[in-house]
Amino acid sequence: MDTEFNETARVEAFSDAVFAIAMTLLVLELRIPHQGEDQPGTLLQTLMDQRSMYVAFLTSFLSIGIMWIKHHKLFTLIQHRTHTLILLNLLLMLGVTVVPFPTAVLAQNLRDPLDVKIAAIFYNGWFTFIAIMFNALWRYASSGRRLLAKTVDERAIRAQTRQFTLLPIFYLIAFAVAWVDGPLSIAISLSLALFLAVPGSRFGSSLNPARDGWSRSAGQPKS
Amino acid sequence: MDTEFNETARVEAFSDAVFAIAMTLLVLELRIPHQGEDQPGTLLQTLMDQRSMYVAFLTSFLSIGIMWIKHHKLFTLIQHRTHTLILLNLLLMLGVTVVPFPTAVLAQNLRDPLDVKIAAIFYNGWFTFIAIMFNALWRYASSGRRLLAKTVDERAIRAQTRQFTLLPIFYLIAFAVAWVDGPLSIAISLSLALFLAVPGSRFGSSLNPARDGWSRSAGQPKS
Amino acid sequence: MDTEFNETARVEAFSDAVFAIAMTLLVLELRIPHQGEDQPGTLLQTLMDQRSMYVAFLTSFLSIGIMWIKHHKLFTLIQHRTHTLILLNLLLMLGVTVVPFPTAVLAQNLRDPLDVKIAAIFYNGWFTFIAIMFNALWRYASSGRRLLAKTVDERAIRAQTRQFTLLPIFYLIAFAVAWVDGPLSIAISLSLALFLAVPGSRFGSSLNPARDGWSRSAGQPKS
Amino acid sequence: MDTEFNETARVEAFSDAVFAIAMTLLVLELRIPHQGEDQPGTLLQTLMDQRSMYVAFLTSFLSIGIMWIKHHKLFTLIQHRTHTLILLNLLLMLGVTVVPFPTAVLAQNLRDPLDVKIAAIFYNGWFTFIAIMFNALWRYASSGRRLLAKTVDERAIRAQTRQFTLLPIFYLIAFAVAWVDGPLSIAISLSLALFLAVPGSRFGSSLNPARDGWSRSAGQPKS
Repeated sequence: MDTEFNETARVEAFSDAVFAIAMTLLVLELRIPHQGEDQPGTLLQTLMDQRSMYVAFLTSFLSIGIMWIKHHKLFTLIQHRTHTLILLNLLLMLGVTVVPFPTAVLAQNLRDPLDVKIAAIFYNGWFTFIAIMFNALWRYASSGRRLLAKTVDERAIRAQTRQFTLLPIFYLIAFAVAWVDGPLSIAISLSLALFLAVPGSRFGSSLNPARDGWSRSAGQPKS
Repeated sequence: MDTEFNETARVEAFSDAVFAIAMTLLVLELRIPHQGEDQPGTLLQTLMDQRSMYVAFLTSFLSIGIMWIKHHKLFTLIQHRTHTLILLNLLLMLGVTVVPFPTAVLAQNLRDPLDVKIAAIFYNGWFTFIAIMFNALWRYASSGRRLLAKTVDERAIRAQTRQFTLLPIFYLIAFAVAWVDGPLSIAISLSLALFLAVPGSRFGSSLNPARDGWSRSAGQPKS
Repeated sequence: MDTEFNETARVEAFSDAVFAIAMTLLVLELRIPHQGEDQPGTLLQTLMDQRSMYVAFLTSFLSIGIMWIKHHKLFTLIQHRTHTLILLNLLLMLGVTVVPFPTAVLAQNLRDPLDVKIAAIFYNGWFTFIAIMFNALWRYASSGRRLLAKTVDERAIRAQTRQFTLLPIFYLIAFAVAWVDGPLSIAISLSLALFLAVPGSRFGSSLNPARDGWSRSAGQPKS
Repeated sequence: MDTEFNETARVEAFSDAVFAIAMTLLVLELRIPHQGEDQPGTLLQTLMDQRSMYVAFLTSFLSIGIMWIKHHKLFTLIQHRTHTLILLNLLLMLGVTVVPFPTAVLAQNLRDPLDVKIAAIFYNGWFTFIAIMFNALWRYASSGRRLLAKTVDERAIRAQTRQFTLLPIFYLIAFAVAWVDGPLSIAISLSLALFLAVPGSRFGSSLNPARDGWSRSAGQPKS
C-alpha cells in the first residue's frame, strides 16, 4: 500500500529539535569576559586565550552533528514505533541534551592537570552513555527485524549492528584513556567524530554504502 | 477519503518544539561555579556537591519527556482542531515552558528545610497544574468524541480518560506531601515519572495497549 | 489536482520554531537571586517579591501564543509564497524574536515610576510594530487574493482584514497610554491578549467562525 | 512517479530549527545591566547607550534570515541527499550556530578602535566562512546536476551559481575592509544583508526570478 505514512515522523521531528537546540546551546558557552571597558585593546589576546574552549565546542558540535546523521540514518530503516522505542529514544535525547554541561565543565577546567582529567572522564563517560543508548535503540529495533521496514536488506542491518557495537567500544577507550591523560582522551573523541564524518572511511561508508542507501527507504513512504 | 491530511500537524509541530526546548533549557541550570582559577584541583568535589541539582534536573527531564509521550499519544487519537483545543494546548505549553523555573528554584534551595518545603510545594503545585490542563484538553477533545478520529475505539478512550483522571490526583498527592516533607514529595514525583515510563506497568500499558495502539491511527492519514 | 502540497510548509515550520523558542526563552527571565546560601528561609518572600515579573512573563507568553494562533490561521488561508511574503514573515519573526528583551526590561524596571513608563512605552511600542507587520503580511497576501487558496471565501477574508486593521490600533492605544500610565498600559496589553483568546468573543469568533473555518482549508492539501 | 516524497525533508527540518534557534539566541545578547535598583530613572539613557548593540543584533538577525531564505531556495532545487551533502550542510549549520558569538564579541567591543577592528575581522571572517560553505554545498549539489530535481532548468542553476560565487567575494571584501576600518566593514555587511533582501534587486530577483520560481519545484513532491 503506497500511501502508508511515516509512523515515526513525530519522533523524528522531536529528536531533530532536541539535536538542533543542544548544538546551538553549545555556543552559549562561547563567551568572552566583559573586559572591553576594563582593558581596552586586549580583545585579540582574550580571543586567543580561549583556544581550548573552541576545541571543546568543536568536539561537542561535531559529535552531536554526527549523532544526528546516525539518528537520521537509523530512522530511515526503522518504520514502526512502540512505547519502548520511544522511551529508548527519550533516554538518547537525555544524553544529547546534557552534552553542553560536560562541554562547559571541560572548557572551564583546562588549567589544573587533575581537573582536566576529571573533566575528560566526565566528558567521555557521558559520550559512552550516549553510544550505549544508541546501541540499545538499534538492537531493540532491529532484533528479529522488529521495527524495520520490509525493504531494508540484511547487509544494511549487519553494517549498522557492527557500527553500533564499535561506537561504545571506541568511547570506552577514550573514557579509559581519560584516567591517564585528559587531553589525549579529548583528542581521541575529536578524532572519532572526524573519522565518522569522512564519507570515504570504511566506517563512514558503511553509514552510507551508496547514494541509494539513503534514497531508497527514507523520506519516501517507508513501505 | 484516504488522502485527508493531519489537521493537527502544525499544533503538534509547535508543541514538539516547545517540549524539546523546555527539556533542553533545563540543562542551562546545570552549571558549576567558575572555580577553576580560584581553587584548582577541586572539580570532583564541586561536581559531587551538586547531586541534588542532578536529581532535580532528571526529575524534570523525565517528567517533561513522559508528558511529550502522552501528548504524542493524545494527538494520535485527536483528529480535528478547534480554537478551544488550540487554546487548551497553549495553556498546556505554558505549563511545560515554565518547568525550568520551579526546577531551578528547587535545585538552588535544598539546604534550608523551610526553603526545600516551599520549593517542593511550588514544584509539585506546578506539575499539578500541568496535569489538570492535560485532563481538560483530553476531556474537551473526547467528550462525545468531539474531535476524535472515527477509527478510535471506545476502550482506548476509556483508558485515556482513566489515566488523565489519575494523573492530577497523583500530583495532588505529591503536592500535599510537600507541605509536610519536601524531599519525599520530590521522590514521589520522580517515582511517578519512572512508573509512567515503564512499558509493562498497568498505567504504561494502558498508554500503549499494543503495538497496534500506536500504529493504527497515528502518523498515517488519520481517517 | 489533489496531490498539490503545501507550498508554505517550510515557512510555517520555521515560524513555529521561532514562536516556540521565543516563548520558551521568556522563562529564562524567571530567575531568583541565588539567595539560598545567604539568607536561608527567605524563599517564599523572594518568590512573592517577583509578582510583577510573573505578570510581565504571562503577558508576553499569552501575547506570543495568541500571535502563533493567528499566524497558524493566516497560513491556512495563504497557499502560495513569494520572496516578498517570506521577507514580511521574516520581519514578523524579528518582532517575535525580540519580545524577550522588552519583557526583561519591563520585569526589571517596575520600581521607579519614570522607568516603568519608559519600559511600558518600549514594550507596547514593540507590540505595535509586530501588529503592523501582521497587518502588512495579511494585506500583501490577501490583496486581490494574491496568495490565497481558491477555496477561501470572501467573508473569511473580510473578517481577517477587519481583525488585522484593529490589532495595531489596539496596540497603538496601549502604546499611547504608556506615556501617561505605565502599569495601565501593560494591563491593556494583557487584557487584549486575554480578550483575543476567549473563543466566544466577537473578535475571537471571527478568528474561528466555525469549526469548519479551521478544518476546511488547513492541514489538508490546500487546493 | 508522482507520490515520490521529499528525500531532504529531515535535513530541511533540522536546518530550520538550527536557523530559528540561532536567530532567537541572538536576543539573549540584548541585555541591560540590572541598574534598576542602583540608579532609578536612568532606563532611557541605558537603552540609548546600547545603540551599537542593536546594530550588531540587527545585522546578524538579517544576515541569518537571508541565509535561511537562501537555504530554503536551495533545497527547493536539491532533490537528493548523500552523506557528503549532509556533512556540508552540517558545516553550514556550524557556521550559523556560531553567529551569536562573533555578534556578542562585536556588540561588547565598540569602544576601543583596535578592539572594534579585531571584532569586525572576526565577524566578517566568520560570515566569509559561511558564504564559502554555502558555495561548496551548492557546487557539490549542482555539479553535473548531481542532486538536483529533474525539473530544475539550466537558467535557474546558472543564476544560483553566479550568486553563490559572488556571496563569498562580497564577504571577503567586508573582511578585508575590517583590517582598515571596523565600523565601515560592519556597515558593508549590513548593506549586503539589506541588498539581498530587496525583492527588486538584480541579486534578489535572481533569487526569485518569478513567483513560479518558488512555486514550481518546492513544497510539492520534487519530481
